[in-house]
Amino acid sequence: MCPYRLVLEHVTSRWGVLVLIRLLERPYRFNELRRAIGRVSEKMLTQTLQTLERDGLVHRDAKPVIPPRVDYSLTELGREAARQVRALAEWTEERMDAVQESRKKYDTAKGR
Amino acid sequence: MCPYRLVLEHVTSRWGVLVLIRLLERPYRFNELRRAIGRVSEKMLTQTLQTLERDGLVHRDAKPVIPPRVDYSLTELGREAARQVRALAEWTEERMDAVQESRKKYDTAKGR
Repeated sequence: MCPYRLVLEHVTSRWGVLVLIRLLERPYRFNELRRAIGRVSEKMLTQTLQTLERDGLVHRDAKPVIPPRVDYSLTELGREAARQVRALAEWTEERMDAVQESRKKYDTAKGR
Repeated sequence: MCPYRLVLEHVTSRWGVLVLIRLLERPYRFNELRRAIGRVSEKMLTQTLQTLERDGLVHRDAKPVIPPRVDYSLTELGREAARQVRALAEWTEERMDAVQESRKKYDTAKGR
């Protein structure tokens, strides 16, 4: 597998897409991000953020305060990825009608 | 899951990306496409093409000749998707150095 393939998988993964799109708006704290995305388990969100942080797309900023406060934001690299992923996600949403139409035709032709 | 999510998965799947990028160049016949992509099984390529055809992104043109001849090409919808997917794949390739650098730092900091 080409090495860049894995990065593509990270940024287009189910939660990767949603995290990147959210963080394009502004930095988020963990729980706030979790609520904003919805339906994501704490474990999955943690893993997604760690993967994106390791790839250099997300910056994790742990403030030395009590109670602990951790902010997540996009790096410059992350912003570049997020803009493209958002464009692709928006395109997919916009064109869903055409896709659904095509699926209906295809299934009818195949007698499904 | 949002319904558009599945389309995003189809166009960013391992073989989906490679098929879309190839077909941006020109139409391909099945075996020709398989050779161009490399390392893809006949079954996987067939499935990928069927999924993309059902979504309305790929057009399958079976010519009534002997021996049978089948050409695959992008629809207008498919071209739109393919251009964005190619841009994202190219960006990922271009920025791999930065990603690798970040991973090295991350792993060192975590003592891996």
